[in-house]
Amino acid sequence: MSTYTGVIPPVVTPLTEDGQVDRSSLERLVQYLLDGGVDGLFALGSSGETVFLTDAQRDMALDVIVRTAAGAVPVMAGCIEPATPRVLDRVRAAERLGADATVVTAPFYVIVGPYEIERHLRAVSAASSLPVLAYDIPVCVGRKLPLDMLLRLAAEGVLAGVKDSSGDDVAFRQLRIGLDDQQDAGFSLLTGHELVVDGMLLAGASGSVPGLGNVDPAGYVRLHSYADKQDWAGARTEQERLGRLFRIVDAPDPATTAGATRGVGAFKTALHLLGVIDSPTVSLPMRTFDDAETGRVREQLELAGLDVRR
Amino acid sequence: MSTYTGVIPPVVTPLTEDGQVDRSSLERLVQYLLDGGVDGLFALGSSGETVFLTDAQRDMALDVIVRTAAGAVPVMAGCIEPATPRVLDRVRAAERLGADATVVTAPFYVIVGPYEIERHLRAVSAASSLPVLAYDIPVCVGRKLPLDMLLRLAAEGVLAGVKDSSGDDVAFRQLRIGLDDQQDAGFSLLTGHELVVDGMLLAGASGSVPGLGNVDPAGYVRLHSYADKQDWAGARTEQERLGRLFRIVDAPDPATTAGATRGVGAFKTALHLLGVIDSPTVSLPMRTFDDAETGRVREQLELAGLDVRR
Amino acid sequence: MSTYTGVIPPVVTPLTEDGQVDRSSLERLVQYLLDGGVDGLFALGSSGETVFLTDAQRDMALDVIVRTAAGAVPVMAGCIEPATPRVLDRVRAAERLGADATVVTAPFYVIVGPYEIERHLRAVSAASSLPVLAYDIPVCVGRKLPLDMLLRLAAEGVLAGVKDSSGDDVAFRQLRIGLDDQQDAGFSLLTGHELVVDGMLLAGASGSVPGLGNVDPAGYVRLHSYADKQDWAGARTEQERLGRLFRIVDAPDPATTAGATRGVGAFKTALHLLGVIDSPTVSLPMRTFDDAETGRVREQLELAGLDVRR
Amino acid sequence: MSTYTGVIPPVVTPLTEDGQVDRSSLERLVQYLLDGGVDGLFALGSSGETVFLTDAQRDMALDVIVRTAAGAVPVMAGCIEPATPRVLDRVRAAERLGADATVVTAPFYVIVGPYEIERHLRAVSAASSLPVLAYDIPVCVGRKLPLDMLLRLAAEGVLAGVKDSSGDDVAFRQLRIGLDDQQDAGFSLLTGHELVVDGMLLAGASGSVPGLGNVDPAGYVRLHSYADKQDWAGARTEQERLGRLFRIVDAPDPATTAGATRGVGAFKTALHLLGVIDSPTVSLPMRTFDDAETGRVREQLELAGLDVRR
Repeated sequence: MSTYTGVIPPVVTPLTEDGQVDRSSLERLVQYLLDGGVDGLFALGSSGETVFLTDAQRDMALDVIVRTAAGAVPVMAGCIEPATPRVLDRVRAAERLGADATVVTAPFYVIVGPYEIERHLRAVSAASSLPVLAYDIPVCVGRKLPLDMLLRLAAEGVLAGVKDSSGDDVAFRQLRIGLDDQQDAGFSLLTGHELVVDGMLLAGASGSVPGLGNVDPAGYVRLHSYADKQDWAGARTEQERLGRLFRIVDAPDPATTAGATRGVGAFKTALHLLGVIDSPTVSLPMRTFDDAETGRVREQLELAGLDVRR
Repeated sequence: MSTYTGVIPPVVTPLTEDGQVDRSSLERLVQYLLDGGVDGLFALGSSGETVFLTDAQRDMALDVIVRTAAGAVPVMAGCIEPATPRVLDRVRAAERLGADATVVTAPFYVIVGPYEIERHLRAVSAASSLPVLAYDIPVCVGRKLPLDMLLRLAAEGVLAGVKDSSGDDVAFRQLRIGLDDQQDAGFSLLTGHELVVDGMLLAGASGSVPGLGNVDPAGYVRLHSYADKQDWAGARTEQERLGRLFRIVDAPDPATTAGATRGVGAFKTALHLLGVIDSPTVSLPMRTFDDAETGRVREQLELAGLDVRR
Repeated sequence: MSTYTGVIPPVVTPLTEDGQVDRSSLERLVQYLLDGGVDGLFALGSSGETVFLTDAQRDMALDVIVRTAAGAVPVMAGCIEPATPRVLDRVRAAERLGADATVVTAPFYVIVGPYEIERHLRAVSAASSLPVLAYDIPVCVGRKLPLDMLLRLAAEGVLAGVKDSSGDDVAFRQLRIGLDDQQDAGFSLLTGHELVVDGMLLAGASGSVPGLGNVDPAGYVRLHSYADKQDWAGARTEQERLGRLFRIVDAPDPATTAGATRGVGAFKTALHLLGVIDSPTVSLPMRTFDDAETGRVREQLELAGLDVRR
Repeated sequence: MSTYTGVIPPVVTPLTEDGQVDRSSLERLVQYLLDGGVDGLFALGSSGETVFLTDAQRDMALDVIVRTAAGAVPVMAGCIEPATPRVLDRVRAAERLGADATVVTAPFYVIVGPYEIERHLRAVSAASSLPVLAYDIPVCVGRKLPLDMLLRLAAEGVLAGVKDSSGDDVAFRQLRIGLDDQQDAGFSLLTGHELVVDGMLLAGASGSVPGLGNVDPAGYVRLHSYADKQDWAGARTEQERLGRLFRIVDAPDPATTAGATRGVGAFKTALHLLGVIDSPTVSLPMRTFDDAETGRVREQLELAGLDVRR
């Protein structure tokens, strides 16, 4: 059985209006997620604005998440830096601060091929005392993790799992079948796509890492529960409700905002409206939603039946 | 209810060794598919080598498919050319030869944006007496069909459906939800990804257009049948068997062969081994599998329980 | 010495308002180019809307160009189709209609790799009685022609030259040096980028294929003439004037028009304003410039000192 | 007149075998570049392995370069991090350590559009006491800096220049013409492409930032000197010699090494063979060249007439 299963939201990092990590909001958010029934927490992922934060801010955010979770659920820590030496520095921090596992992408900014990617993941794993999950996110790093490499590193125990945000459901299926064929049941196969969790669970995902799970953790917990009971019609219905809720990311005009602003901005705006965090502030060069955009987020939250407080 | 549902394989176009359309092999293939229980036929798609064939060869292939199907199931005809005027020529041929619908991609080779793509689909639909399905295949044309455009063209009746080969399951889900919200039940939402048909049917696909369905039509028919009965565990098991069978595309060394050769080459090699078509010949610049590669295809066919005859 | 040198504009194909090839406008355009002093003509290239035209229209356009040129300069014919068999059909037409050479891209729409590209070019060349130039245009076909392949096919005489529209000036330099090192002086290295002809000639280009050369052939002839005399400051000054003239492509709003419309639309609008062709009509899904856009083209033509007649 | 002109190599960061910054090798390298006659130094760029180094290592490298240059030439410091807050931390370090200017890319890893890129550059410039040059390197960050934005930020004095490693010579020409038209003579337009410096200088570049300039600074100084004297034939000849020398990057098998390893690895191997630095060590996940690869580098150095010492 794989260790990392169920709903594992990528925790957003609440900021004060002057851009500092907002400790009490983050504590409330973690509690909100635990109250929602989540099975794990992914700190310092893309939704956590990890590549915007200084190392000190990252350390504080991870520390707050680990302490607030207090062992109730495992905490995975993103160690997201362009290349091996800097990733290893973040692995050291994750070990020191009590994370249960690390999550590592392919190198980015540097021009690498399959050989360099494999060398990178092997070097990180070899130097780490914690389990390492690979983070497959080509939209951010420019490259898809090769299927044959993932199967090899799973078989050798170099990787403990994959967080798949590649959007490549065909490769996901091939990976699942390949893992089954080599009997790697302990390998965690997590999907990062909050709109297709039902189909990915049907296909054999171990769990999900839904950014939207910050906003509606209980919804994703219900979805997983339906799937566990093989009630796939129920899973689909819950997934479609969450799919409609995801329209909060369409609140800003796409002609003047790109993905980062739309995703993290929407999650934080929603959490602010739900009364979970104090400010919807996002890091530069993203921007905070304006009143009209916030109004559109509120409307979707209400349609989804969430408890809007602001 | 949408008109185009169930299993609709993209029929490969058998060739003689000197590159001519092999009429009798094509007749046998169509009969093999009908015997397998398919619900429709997609002629002159990517798997049908349409962009390799001359117009005369295309006409012959479509004519043979329409005549052999003889009204038992609908025939959709790919009208795949870089830009509007040439697509319209192919629409004329489809009308003349008795196809039931046409399938049209975004422009390719020419550098277009969303406005040009929408103008293209509107112009084709306006000039066509047959229903038009959009073919979303960014890996071939370089652009994904925009979600908002598809919903608009569905609402206005410009398009009768989409064949989605984008591999973007998130957009597929968003399209399904959007169609439901605007009550476009008559719009056909077909998936072209043969490895995730179970998940796509769970998500609300109207049908599938699996290239691998040339090789094992009965398998896809069973998969759909499980889904119709809400037996999702059964659907998944059948899908996984087909997923393993898909490994026939890995028979050639990826360092020396790209996608086209691997896909069409594998399907034709398999159909040859199954005794359905006389020659595994593919068009230049693809190449026919060698003996070792053919051996690996045979092995997978046997593992999948198919009746190898050669 | 390479055979194809100097200014070789990719001739646009004038259309009547109902989308037919406008024979008399095309004759006037060819005469305008010859009067401008060009050294060759490239028929049925991207600027010639070749992928929009039916085979009959292509044949008519090539026929008019060859007859009007009447041997005064060589005529290269684009044979631009997705894959080998259809390209060979176009090669047959080029041979029949009296072209002096053919120009062939990598396959497109079909998913190919380096091996398939090389097999394609070798097959076309082997079956052709005319010299074959490769057309390197990744923005249209999705792949750059590999440097080592080009050098190999040059050395073996498979290719007579390259029309480089890749925008990769580093690869262009490497190709020039490589050709020099293997003493392939007869190989034509043509640049398709109308804004950097001075630098490309300095780097050792044999000639240029400037789309903007339809509008101002005499300007490009002067630019080449400066380069021939090693007057590089003069070449740069002329190039900069032409660079400013190229702003005609910015006449439409980029938010609602993509590359094809902007380029071909601008050239045709300009030629119409200059009195060379009767209509600025472009093929669907492109659109003809509106009055405001046409006004901006007129302004640039006047700034460049051209003789506006309409 | 622009402030940053002439040859400004992106200084590689020599490492000891255990991955620490090798201070004495770096001092020798800076001296080697100054002896070669360079006009400036670009510290902590892509060739400087900046995204591999810890902040402490970056600070040490920049400190050594500034101290060794000792005001003889200006030092530009790369401040290369995925998003604004972390870039600003690096700007603070550059200010503290005595750099003369900073060099900043578009955001990377985060999904941004034109609006976010402009907000990023404006925010960095506003918070910086040093001049800011934009670093246009789509191969690393995934996006090209838009022409209109660059012209706007030049006109407003937000940016002091651009280091163009986009390989888009057409856009380079358009930027040069645009800057001339708005009379921004003080804006530095630097090319990062070591194989086309002659053509870029002809087109009006202010200077070059050639990675290969680490290996043969005197060659690039000669090339610029020819250009300054309008001896373009001389410039081309020198450029071609340097273009052949650049073949050191082809020493490893491209099937098993990607760009980063090939470029930085080749420059460091060459500098080691020339006796300038003590070790050719590169950061993980790159790898050091093996004996056969080193032999091929030696061969090219000898062909180029450089003084091989090892």
